[in-house]
Amino acid sequence: MSHTPDSAVRAYIEQHRAAFLDDLAEWLRIPSVSADPGRAADVRRSADWLAAKLKETGFPTVEVWETGDGAGAPAVFAEWPSGDEGAPTVLVYGHHDVQPAAREDGWHTDPFEPVVKDGRLYARGAADDKGQVFFHTLGVRAHLAATGRTAPAVNLKLLVEGEEEFGSPNFPALVRAHADRLACDSVIVSDTGMWAEDTPTVCTGMRGLVECQIDLYGPDQDIHSGSFGGAVPNPATEAARLVAALHDEDRRVAIPGFYDGVVELTDAERELFAELPFDEERWQRTAHSHATLGEAGFTTLERVWARPTAEVNGIGGGYQGPGGKTIVPSSAMLKLSFRLVAGQDTDRIQQAVREWTAARLPAGIRHEITFTGATRPCLTPLDHPALRSVVRAMGRAFGQKVRFTREGGSGPAADLQDVLGVPVLFLGISVPSDGWHAPNEKVELGLLMKGVETAAHLWGDLAAGPDGH
Amino acid sequence: MSHTPDSAVRAYIEQHRAAFLDDLAEWLRIPSVSADPGRAADVRRSADWLAAKLKETGFPTVEVWETGDGAGAPAVFAEWPSGDEGAPTVLVYGHHDVQPAAREDGWHTDPFEPVVKDGRLYARGAADDKGQVFFHTLGVRAHLAATGRTAPAVNLKLLVEGEEEFGSPNFPALVRAHADRLACDSVIVSDTGMWAEDTPTVCTGMRGLVECQIDLYGPDQDIHSGSFGGAVPNPATEAARLVAALHDEDRRVAIPGFYDGVVELTDAERELFAELPFDEERWQRTAHSHATLGEAGFTTLERVWARPTAEVNGIGGGYQGPGGKTIVPSSAMLKLSFRLVAGQDTDRIQQAVREWTAARLPAGIRHEITFTGATRPCLTPLDHPALRSVVRAMGRAFGQKVRFTREGGSGPAADLQDVLGVPVLFLGISVPSDGWHAPNEKVELGLLMKGVETAAHLWGDLAAGPDGH
Repeated sequence: MSHTPDSAVRAYIEQHRAAFLDDLAEWLRIPSVSADPGRAADVRRSADWLAAKLKETGFPTVEVWETGDGAGAPAVFAEWPSGDEGAPTVLVYGHHDVQPAAREDGWHTDPFEPVVKDGRLYARGAADDKGQVFFHTLGVRAHLAATGRTAPAVNLKLLVEGEEEFGSPNFPALVRAHADRLACDSVIVSDTGMWAEDTPTVCTGMRGLVECQIDLYGPDQDIHSGSFGGAVPNPATEAARLVAALHDEDRRVAIPGFYDGVVELTDAERELFAELPFDEERWQRTAHSHATLGEAGFTTLERVWARPTAEVNGIGGGYQGPGGKTIVPSSAMLKLSFRLVAGQDTDRIQQAVREWTAARLPAGIRHEITFTGATRPCLTPLDHPALRSVVRAMGRAFGQKVRFTREGGSGPAADLQDVLGVPVLFLGISVPSDGWHAPNEKVELGLLMKGVETAAHLWGDLAAGPDGH
Repeated sequence: MSHTPDSAVRAYIEQHRAAFLDDLAEWLRIPSVSADPGRAADVRRSADWLAAKLKETGFPTVEVWETGDGAGAPAVFAEWPSGDEGAPTVLVYGHHDVQPAAREDGWHTDPFEPVVKDGRLYARGAADDKGQVFFHTLGVRAHLAATGRTAPAVNLKLLVEGEEEFGSPNFPALVRAHADRLACDSVIVSDTGMWAEDTPTVCTGMRGLVECQIDLYGPDQDIHSGSFGGAVPNPATEAARLVAALHDEDRRVAIPGFYDGVVELTDAERELFAELPFDEERWQRTAHSHATLGEAGFTTLERVWARPTAEVNGIGGGYQGPGGKTIVPSSAMLKLSFRLVAGQDTDRIQQAVREWTAARLPAGIRHEITFTGATRPCLTPLDHPALRSVVRAMGRAFGQKVRFTREGGSGPAADLQDVLGVPVLFLGISVPSDGWHAPNEKVELGLLMKGVETAAHLWGDLAAGPDGH
């Protein structure tokens, strides 16, 4: 069997841990805030730093890719062929840009001056996503050292983008432009988390997303509600009636055809979700909500991970200033988003929303729908061979049963899945307390090293094929 | 009988017409724009001008009343006792302030430099409301001249406020403070219009108004719709569901108790409405609407004049900027107004709205209701003696059958009705084409003189009692 002996991996990691953390700290000192135009040079410095480090790690090919015709933030691509005949090709995805951070936001220390305290490394990007990208560098070296190989057991590719915290505006085009260089058998996304420090998990899917704005037009101008109210259609009323009609009394989405093709949760999956130590009250506090509410017949976790939704992100119309204004407004606006699950098609959903809207509005209300974005859902079946490899590698690193989660959100992973036509797997070691996008972001050093160890085991397992040996 | 001979009235009016119009033009040159703090001195000048003119007309008592402890715009009060034992007391209401106007808004001539052209007097305030207030000055003089009296047949009082175009913020307090001076048997409001130039009408009522803002609070902050959407209550969704629940499928207001006590239209009233030469398409154009829509079983005129309504004046929540933002918003807001008809009580409606709102919101959505204003409806029965006097006086002036209308709006007339406890009647000669609040406001000189003539006939008729002689 081609597995690396676990003890050799651990020994190598232990030996290089200090240098690895020093390097990571150096990277974290670069404030690669993609949303801040004033930090563009830092984002570029971050890409260059990573490119140099990947060269040093041993990747024979390392390139900095421009995006948006040079107007976007650079991505880093690296490639290390296996040399083995028939070795699978794996693409690791992550990002080197970070969220904004300032001391006055509530940071106890400078967000760009990493500090280790009580087994945690505090810095902006420690978990999201520099720490999780970086564990692959020591991971692949540990894999080589423990197996005596000079190249990985898989054809290893890395794509580390620089605009994820900015909505990845240029990412789909980047992936399409370099689809041949990015070709692979599976994608490993290292930009997610696991359930909890004592509960290692693998994410098996993300929801898709369809977003739209519906503009409703009634009278050509705001008109007096005393003179005309009660006798003409009111676009704010009709906007509200649309929203109310989105869900039935069981809070199921009531748009005809919405659930067509939905891959329903199996009993096995529901049991696996139910095994997780879920604390509903604690979840509710995390949501800053004062209650839970959703589709009848499903648990909270099922609702956010595995059920499609319709949500109002914004609504507006008429007078919103202080006091009152007795008008029938001339227009109103809705921003809706639909989270999709496997089996739902973004085009079909857009068409269903179009038809449903048109059918519900009365005469005298003109409308326009603008779809502002569409991301397809992704889901890896629990019995997929590559998923089994990730679970085995993680199980060896953690010495614990690995469970399964999903992500309620939607992400650029789906672009990789769609353009490259391959399954997307998730390998993340961050935990909910890591404070993504919040002050005092940190990564648990113990978990970070488990990430290194998982990566060190993974390439051999994937190369060994479906049975893992 | 005490009627003034119609020909004597006409002769007197004809004789004084030129001087009357010169005086009105002088008043119209004062830009008494109450909404513009920079015009406060002009509003005061307008009050002083009117007070002097009423003195000159013959009112023995004329006073300028301060409002809002001197911070508001002044009102003018005038009183002319009849001297006849048992003469009824009538209070005429109008306002001397005007809407803003500027040449660049589309005026063909200076809005504050009156111009007579093709039998029309163009100026801001020509119809709303200086022209209609002013016809009472010549009216009472014609009444005296034609009857040989030295004082009117009724105890005549005038109250001309200076903040009507600004929402009459100090008017209820003013009326309450001077309730003893304002005591009367009926109020004549000269601040409305009639159906059309060739269709003289008397307005018999205005709708009441209850306004509120409902604030809905969900999560303590905006939260990610991917991570939490579909499993927590969304205040924008709940705001919309409230609005949708305001009406049933027949567009009747669905708040329990809302129609309790409503004085239904009689068959006779519906027939009178139906006799009016109503052009639905033209009305729709005036409304700038592209359709009519309202409570099933009622015509457009019935809907706006005689049926209570629930209208959304404003709605807002979540993200309303460009593009999308995938959040569950933390709050949403509704501004609702309810038009009321006779028999509905503003307090009871507020309570019904409170209870209905509280009963419909799910756990996790906190709400606050703020009522921002309440005006009671007013309605004069068709067989009310004072209304019959107005109809007779107008019929003599116009030489035509006088029909009945109502006003869909709500106004300070209701404050007079409520505080003074008397019926409110409406005597207005403005027509829809007069352009209230719009550029090129005008009054038809022919109609203006009919207003003078109506006023000249009215006092004698009212004094003569129920049978008009």
